[in-house]
Amino acid sequence: MNFTDLIEKKKQGKPHSKDEINHIVKSFMAGTVSDAQVAAWLTAVCFKGMNVDETAYLTEALGHSGKVIDFGELASKVVDKHSTGGVGDKVTITLIPLLAAAGVPVAKLADRGLGAAAGTVDKLEAIPSLNTNLSTQAIVNQVKNINAVIASQADDLAPADKKMYILRNEIAAVDSAPLLASSIISKKLASGASNIIIDVKYGSGAFMDTPEDAVNLSKLMVEVGKILKKSITAIVTSMEEPLGRAIGNSLEVIEAVKFLKGEITKGDLADLTYAIAVTILLQMDLFDTGKEAELYLKSLVNSGKALEKFRELIIAQGGAAEVLDNYDKFALPTYKVECESKKNGYVQNINAHNIALALKELGAARENSTKPIDLSVGIYLNKKSGEYVNKGEALYTIYSNSEESTKAAQRFCDDAFSINESKPPVNNLIYKIISLKEEEDDV
Amino acid sequence: MNFTDLIEKKKQGKPHSKDEINHIVKSFMAGTVSDAQVAAWLTAVCFKGMNVDETAYLTEALGHSGKVIDFGELASKVVDKHSTGGVGDKVTITLIPLLAAAGVPVAKLADRGLGAAAGTVDKLEAIPSLNTNLSTQAIVNQVKNINAVIASQADDLAPADKKMYILRNEIAAVDSAPLLASSIISKKLASGASNIIIDVKYGSGAFMDTPEDAVNLSKLMVEVGKILKKSITAIVTSMEEPLGRAIGNSLEVIEAVKFLKGEITKGDLADLTYAIAVTILLQMDLFDTGKEAELYLKSLVNSGKALEKFRELIIAQGGAAEVLDNYDKFALPTYKVECESKKNGYVQNINAHNIALALKELGAARENSTKPIDLSVGIYLNKKSGEYVNKGEALYTIYSNSEESTKAAQRFCDDAFSINESKPPVNNLIYKIISLKEEEDDV
Repeated sequence: MNFTDLIEKKKQGKPHSKDEINHIVKSFMAGTVSDAQVAAWLTAVCFKGMNVDETAYLTEALGHSGKVIDFGELASKVVDKHSTGGVGDKVTITLIPLLAAAGVPVAKLADRGLGAAAGTVDKLEAIPSLNTNLSTQAIVNQVKNINAVIASQADDLAPADKKMYILRNEIAAVDSAPLLASSIISKKLASGASNIIIDVKYGSGAFMDTPEDAVNLSKLMVEVGKILKKSITAIVTSMEEPLGRAIGNSLEVIEAVKFLKGEITKGDLADLTYAIAVTILLQMDLFDTGKEAELYLKSLVNSGKALEKFRELIIAQGGAAEVLDNYDKFALPTYKVECESKKNGYVQNINAHNIALALKELGAARENSTKPIDLSVGIYLNKKSGEYVNKGEALYTIYSNSEESTKAAQRFCDDAFSINESKPPVNNLIYKIISLKEEEDDV
Repeated sequence: MNFTDLIEKKKQGKPHSKDEINHIVKSFMAGTVSDAQVAAWLTAVCFKGMNVDETAYLTEALGHSGKVIDFGELASKVVDKHSTGGVGDKVTITLIPLLAAAGVPVAKLADRGLGAAAGTVDKLEAIPSLNTNLSTQAIVNQVKNINAVIASQADDLAPADKKMYILRNEIAAVDSAPLLASSIISKKLASGASNIIIDVKYGSGAFMDTPEDAVNLSKLMVEVGKILKKSITAIVTSMEEPLGRAIGNSLEVIEAVKFLKGEITKGDLADLTYAIAVTILLQMDLFDTGKEAELYLKSLVNSGKALEKFRELIIAQGGAAEVLDNYDKFALPTYKVECESKKNGYVQNINAHNIALALKELGAARENSTKPIDLSVGIYLNKKSGEYVNKGEALYTIYSNSEESTKAAQRFCDDAFSINESKPPVNNLIYKIISLKEEEDDV
């Protein structure tokens, strides 16, 4: 197979066969084609797309390019959750203990952050001495023992996806639906889970701008899952403003812990955590109605079982579980600056992208793969959309380790808030849930 | 300047500034961006194009990436001619001596063939001991002395174009009009000529399929020439069937010599040679009408001056000029096989692409940059389109060095010819001549 011909074929918008896709991935990994040729092919895919079959072939080729975790008799039950990434998104930390407490085995394989947002692995490392670099065997054992693990995606799982992701990042080929879908699902193929829920975010803090784009990606992933015999549900959610009130690594873990303690029962973080958990329980046919499932989940929070599951997970992974009881055990920042509102009014919107830029100024996000990030710093949103603020009242709080970064972050935060007299319409957090069942109903 | 942002910009179809284009070319040459990034950018250009200004910026950046030949006081007069390549195209060999005999200084910098067709340099090397690897100074001197030179494009002229061409070839990014235009004209910028004529071919033996594509490329090149202050004329010509009757290196030189001797006065080779020569003489304001110019050019052939000029060129470049008088001094093939027509009728068409494939079987075209080509082999078309052939009469002749290659070539040739009862319409060789004057008339 001549690689130049394959590029030409995709440039003309023609679909590839399974053999061709396998050849592309194998040649890429073996280095028998140049990165330049693969870059040209990826760029052609950005322009001409891939159909569902091609996307499934690519997903499989990437997902099977290394080790595949085998959960044995648990395999058909294991759940994995993925988010396409958003500002303040700590739902993995609220969700995994909650589901595990509900008796569902959850193996969450997570990434570090690459762009503006920190990744779940970064956030968890705010818990002193917690280890996410687990062997495949340790991951399987921990799920068997306590139903829950949150581990780094190991290098030997879907290595072709990793290599291709680095190239895509280098050549501005990140936001292509078939490339996104195959990258996301390939990791889940390798992670060995059977029940997969994907939170597909759109808005100023996500890399997809519109709900339509997010729905298209979601439908594609659900269809690819059908071909690859994985149960995939996508939940399309708004990321116009940060999720929850805390943004920054330690701050986000603390907010998640507060949720697990039953101290946060309203707002977007609680709503989204329950929505995703309910969706999974229904997907696994564990409840007849969403209402029943939600009541059960809330009982797990109120009884302390969800928090205890998180404690088990921290201990199993070598972390300092006392942080759950004493937040001062987290790394602490030097400065805490409450920033006041300059006028009276309702918060209309908090631009998540600007908040992400403020986080970067504070050092809470990764600028490149080698530079460490500051786990202690962040931003707390004292007011969120729809809430009234008086002039002089605290609008947000900056946690930082330098005066310079505080000022720089403040500029971005001030730009992020829009405030005026009228009460804004309620922002719908959950736009649509897309599952195979629904897909089949649509037909 | 972040290269990924430049790729993204072009993917969105936005135009680049001059600084951005310069940055792209400089980074590519310096190796400060990866070939993968440049490949992605080139692929984005294939999809989204470039406007005339961007194309001129790229042309200039490529053309000035190395040495630029300086013809001194001759600079404003020197002519260069380029063909986008076609099967049997030996017009450089007929044209350069003819123009030089007319008193026009001509510096033709030529390539070796890369694809199905051999290049002018390959063809000329069929003349024993002729040297085309001339230094810049030798090129300038020869033009000053005898008005004519045909030399290889030296490695230090437009090296960025060479490097980019190799990458484009690898990633199926050859047939983009702005990339083609900038590549062609950048070489001419470096070669120091001021009057440039470009034969843009379309049809089965060219890489452009339609006259519309060829016209678009031509208009772009003429407009780029205007911006870069070079007088460029494009002549859009049909390459549906091979040009002339001889295809293959030695055979083509012999045919060109026969033209220069006045033995070939009709047919596409003579027509195209005169048309291009007349266009240049008019472009340089040397004649008032095309008719006068053509009469003068024909007198140069009939008087033997054109042939003598070619002899001077061969001698100046160390070649064996006796080939002009004794064709047996060319490398001779082992086999000469006349192939007969299987039916009566008019030749409707001779598919140039199939003939090119036959040439490849014979070993007359380059398969890769290291393998030498066989200069002695080729095909002679005893009949061309519009001519009547009787069953059993010679349709074409194969010159080869093996029985196997003869048979393989014969299969392609048989497929190339279509013959039937009715006389075909006359195939217009010259579709359109596009010059700045005409462009301005159009406005």
